[in-house]
Amino acid sequence: MISAEIEISASFYDVDSMDIVWHGNFVKYLEDARCALLEKIDYDYNTMRENGYAWPVVSINIKYISPIRFMQKVKVRATLDEYENCIKIKYAITDAGTGKRIAKAETVQMAVDMETMKSLFFSPQILLDKVRRHLENA
Amino acid sequence: MISAEIEISASFYDVDSMDIVWHGNFVKYLEDARCALLEKIDYDYNTMRENGYAWPVVSINIKYISPIRFMQKVKVRATLDEYENCIKIKYAITDAGTGKRIAKAETVQMAVDMETMKSLFFSPQILLDKVRRHLENA
Amino acid sequence: MISAEIEISASFYDVDSMDIVWHGNFVKYLEDARCALLEKIDYDYNTMRENGYAWPVVSINIKYISPIRFMQKVKVRATLDEYENCIKIKYAITDAGTGKRIAKAETVQMAVDMETMKSLFFSPQILLDKVRRHLENA
Amino acid sequence: MISAEIEISASFYDVDSMDIVWHGNFVKYLEDARCALLEKIDYDYNTMRENGYAWPVVSINIKYISPIRFMQKVKVRATLDEYENCIKIKYAITDAGTGKRIAKAETVQMAVDMETMKSLFFSPQILLDKVRRHLENA
Repeated sequence: MISAEIEISASFYDVDSMDIVWHGNFVKYLEDARCALLEKIDYDYNTMRENGYAWPVVSINIKYISPIRFMQKVKVRATLDEYENCIKIKYAITDAGTGKRIAKAETVQMAVDMETMKSLFFSPQILLDKVRRHLENA
Repeated sequence: MISAEIEISASFYDVDSMDIVWHGNFVKYLEDARCALLEKIDYDYNTMRENGYAWPVVSINIKYISPIRFMQKVKVRATLDEYENCIKIKYAITDAGTGKRIAKAETVQMAVDMETMKSLFFSPQILLDKVRRHLENA
Repeated sequence: MISAEIEISASFYDVDSMDIVWHGNFVKYLEDARCALLEKIDYDYNTMRENGYAWPVVSINIKYISPIRFMQKVKVRATLDEYENCIKIKYAITDAGTGKRIAKAETVQMAVDMETMKSLFFSPQILLDKVRRHLENA
Repeated sequence: MISAEIEISASFYDVDSMDIVWHGNFVKYLEDARCALLEKIDYDYNTMRENGYAWPVVSINIKYISPIRFMQKVKVRATLDEYENCIKIKYAITDAGTGKRIAKAETVQMAVDMETMKSLFFSPQILLDKVRRHLENA
């Protein structure tokens, strides 16, 4: 189980007129946590691109449990759930102080070969190697 | 079936370094379509609030089928799928020119009584009335 | 004087906890108006790029006069103020109904030759041609 | 001279199709730095509001010197430049590694009495006290 955790303090511009973070801004938190996870296995977006693959998000699900207020500190944990055919990541957002559950989410990304612009139904070897190498070193 | 449709032209600031609209920005398109739908039944956010209810989004699902490019014109159709216990809305995003499918999505909102801050498991009477009135006049 | 005007309805996600559009989101309105202006002279971002130039914004000034509320309709007028050495555009944001002044702004963009990555202190011929052609046809 | 500094890593969703942070997203960086500065003198937005004042931004100026790339780490320093009649803050954005200048900016905020909704041409006593107290303790 490879995972990464980031801490975020809710910014003023992310808060809506109900005084809570607008639900669409949670996607940014997920993106930052996903980037931290991919950086951990040395497969960030720049590396993906240099190796000829794009990994567009093909689905996203978020369940909102409790709101986030302005300046509230939250933790976003991203855990790699599948990587052989796609990149499926699960997320848990919790209050940084109390651990109270705020939201859970899941994203799926499919590899696209940037030369042919075709979707791949198996992950390219480079990802499998990156994950294996990370697990060996862990 | 109550539905509303908006047309959007993808803005430069919504496009990412892959030259396509960043997946998280689709949530904004859904929000605008949902607002158009709620305005249609005369139950926009201001009306909700004046009547003492908030309707936080409790879940969101998006399936991404094809990308949106800078300046591409897309249609976002929001259709009310349930309203008796919650507001469930389904969305279809298509290319405005060709009709090609771009994404589909679903959001669920639960009513919260703003005095007690309790979630309601039945929609408040005001929503039922608004929907009924709209259907009678349609 | 070449100018373009767009109309925008303030979205929920652009409104902050004071119930008004967050000041930083005005930059998006300016961007949309600027794109409309550049499209009008047939020199949109894609055309710029195909011709080998980028036009990064080098300065922005905004004066905020009155707030924009959720669902308020506003007009954003962009006027080309200089184009020989840079693209300087002036903006006026007004209420779409009353014409009341909301904000005024100015952006300056400098051409960058994308091959040499050098800034240019004179606008490339293509822009001068586009402006001239537009003025002849106007 | 009261100042605060934050460090930011440029997020994927803030980067545009030129592979650099979209110029409008710099306003978010300024907002985060300003909040850090106001927190330092114990006068954050919640405190402002509890004391009956809003402080809308009435002008913003940004000069862009060099671009910010995806995952680039930058420092944003906010310095209180005036507080007796308004809150004027100056900002310097630099590369976190090399110190290279990226942008400089300035915002001006005017106090609004939230009861009368009138702008004030002198800062309310609470701000003067907060600044004085901070300087005494520094």
